[in-house]
Amino acid sequence: MGPLATADFMRKLVQSTPAARDQDHMPVFVHSVPQIPDRSESFLAGSDAPWPFLLSGLRILEAAGAGAIAIPCNTAHLWHARLAAATDLEVLHIGSATSEAVTSHPARLTRVGLLATSATIQGRIYHDALCAAGVDVIVPPAQHQTERVMAGIAAVKAGDLAAATSLLRLAAAQLVDDGAQGVILGCTELPLALDGQSSDVPLFDTTHLLAAACIAWWSRSKAEQLRSESFSS
Amino acid sequence: MGPLATADFMRKLVQSTPAARDQDHMPVFVHSVPQIPDRSESFLAGSDAPWPFLLSGLRILEAAGAGAIAIPCNTAHLWHARLAAATDLEVLHIGSATSEAVTSHPARLTRVGLLATSATIQGRIYHDALCAAGVDVIVPPAQHQTERVMAGIAAVKAGDLAAATSLLRLAAAQLVDDGAQGVILGCTELPLALDGQSSDVPLFDTTHLLAAACIAWWSRSKAEQLRSESFSS
Repeated sequence: MGPLATADFMRKLVQSTPAARDQDHMPVFVHSVPQIPDRSESFLAGSDAPWPFLLSGLRILEAAGAGAIAIPCNTAHLWHARLAAATDLEVLHIGSATSEAVTSHPARLTRVGLLATSATIQGRIYHDALCAAGVDVIVPPAQHQTERVMAGIAAVKAGDLAAATSLLRLAAAQLVDDGAQGVILGCTELPLALDGQSSDVPLFDTTHLLAAACIAWWSRSKAEQLRSESFSS
Repeated sequence: MGPLATADFMRKLVQSTPAARDQDHMPVFVHSVPQIPDRSESFLAGSDAPWPFLLSGLRILEAAGAGAIAIPCNTAHLWHARLAAATDLEVLHIGSATSEAVTSHPARLTRVGLLATSATIQGRIYHDALCAAGVDVIVPPAQHQTERVMAGIAAVKAGDLAAATSLLRLAAAQLVDDGAQGVILGCTELPLALDGQSSDVPLFDTTHLLAAACIAWWSRSKAEQLRSESFSS
């Protein structure tokens, strides 16, 4: 939903695709309409204001011929179940893709830190799946959540990446001090500020992991098409 | 049409927009379907193969509610006049945006170099407007055009930016040696390889200039809407 995060998602989608020429890349339709009300503020205020915008975007992508839907915004996944129920298309889930990467990490992580919007935390987008898999999720204390994480996300949205990087590095370091063996960048604005930053623990880039899930979907979808063509011929 | 160039265009669009929050950004629909046949090969072979793909993309963007069309691919502008004739929407022109930037450059350039696909050169996307404005356009000799420019563009499309950068730096330097006072990066793959490279002469980034033209269109369009709302109230 953040337009810079959407551009970052597209770049990661292209750069994660094995391709030798344009035609090897996945066809993509993008509906980037940042006039949608803030997802985190709406959820915390008990407002459903983003929903009509999400549904309208879904219908436009369906009409354009999309075969699956990806939403490069973690907080918007608070509406994922309703979107998935409103369409026959597969709606990929950024939290599932990331939780799988966390639980299958070779270091067998038992405690991860979560940097995300306050709504993503309160809505338990990561907590439920990871707790069920035996992974503890820790989050910044309330004051850091406001002054570092939410302020850092707002700085990315305002185009001030330098300010965002210094705030978010502090927030990530505190989670590691508190025992996090890995940190989930659970908002797609975060990799924009933290890409290329060194870290003592693995950082889980949810933008990249959603892109990888798209490419996996596309491979499955091409394989199924080939199978059905070979049956019908 | 190159998907990495499309992602770069989106990033430049966002980063060129004065905005403090998501909602200040322009709504954008993207139709990135790289299965379209190669524009340069088709034009040079006298083939119209890209046309149905371009027209289908136009119709999908019209249906999604687009107010103007931008095509972040210089070579596809060989079909610009036909696209513009096929729609009521304004179809921005990357070559016009760039030619204006060249002719209004404070250094009063009289000779510029053009790095572009062979089709963009033969189709005179830049030559006609610039010659009419009294600016000479020089291009690489045929062997460099093939072995440096076209090979460099193909390297970007294959994701090998390091190889592309070294080939394209050589091509740009040769144009400067031949008297170019500025160099047009007349293919949207080129800024991906040359962004951030130092240069003795101004480099005209056509991706950035098309993004700027979009933002100017959007400002005009918002101003017109405000005017018409104040008349009708």
